[in-house]
Amino acid sequence: MDTEKYSAGPCPIARALIRMGDAWSMLILRDAGYGATRFDQFRTSLGIAPNILTRRLTALVEHGLMEKRRYCQQPPRDEYLLTPSGRDLLPVLLALGAWGRRHCGAGPTSHAVDAETGAPIEPVVVDRTTGRLVQDIPQRIVIPA
Amino acid sequence: MDTEKYSAGPCPIARALIRMGDAWSMLILRDAGYGATRFDQFRTSLGIAPNILTRRLTALVEHGLMEKRRYCQQPPRDEYLLTPSGRDLLPVLLALGAWGRRHCGAGPTSHAVDAETGAPIEPVVVDRTTGRLVQDIPQRIVIPA
Repeated sequence: MDTEKYSAGPCPIARALIRMGDAWSMLILRDAGYGATRFDQFRTSLGIAPNILTRRLTALVEHGLMEKRRYCQQPPRDEYLLTPSGRDLLPVLLALGAWGRRHCGAGPTSHAVDAETGAPIEPVVVDRTTGRLVQDIPQRIVIPA
Repeated sequence: MDTEKYSAGPCPIARALIRMGDAWSMLILRDAGYGATRFDQFRTSLGIAPNILTRRLTALVEHGLMEKRRYCQQPPRDEYLLTPSGRDLLPVLLALGAWGRRHCGAGPTSHAVDAETGAPIEPVVVDRTTGRLVQDIPQRIVIPA
């Protein structure tokens, strides 16, 4: 993939995909959203090879979705925290998960509930101004000159 | 990635990622959402090598996001159409694009507008029942037993 072309091109979906990385990266962000911060937490949760995890974490830091913070000087130990940009991606992952529940196989799935009321959360994508489901809006794409 | 583990596991985000594929697949779905149906349309739009495009289209068909339909018998020619499952993913891509506009670099980007009113569409992820932005809801994950 010509990452330079897509990274600076006019399509914001392509720009996002370049920075977000692959499925591993998205699962790392998912786990970070659930509170994981340390290398071993990600490694255990994902069953991912250490060298692959290192590469993905480094890329997420380079792309500004996570930041690396030293939490112990001796021995040196780092943790990985979501940046505001990374945190802002979590609702998109929840919307993706809602799609996964609707379309991806049988068997029970995990789901998010309101921590205060226990009510299930069903993420849907709407237009901020009108509140309409975006799938119900007839659309046209405006491409910058 | 252990696709079998994730494909049938309880996390619907992981299930989705396995089926949705990589960045190329998501850009193919994006183009299909904009009306592309034919191999050469995808190839030209994406600047993707034919063998890679073939593999991605085949995987999208296998995973039920697109269907292949013969539109010409002589010579044999196929087109690729979004299934309801594939179409249902487009709002998630729009939400991803909105994130891309907020966080991924400078320079003008394309954006969707209401085809009837011309008003810009700003996709956000909310809870269907309450209409609250999911990022504002304190959450807890329920994992099936």
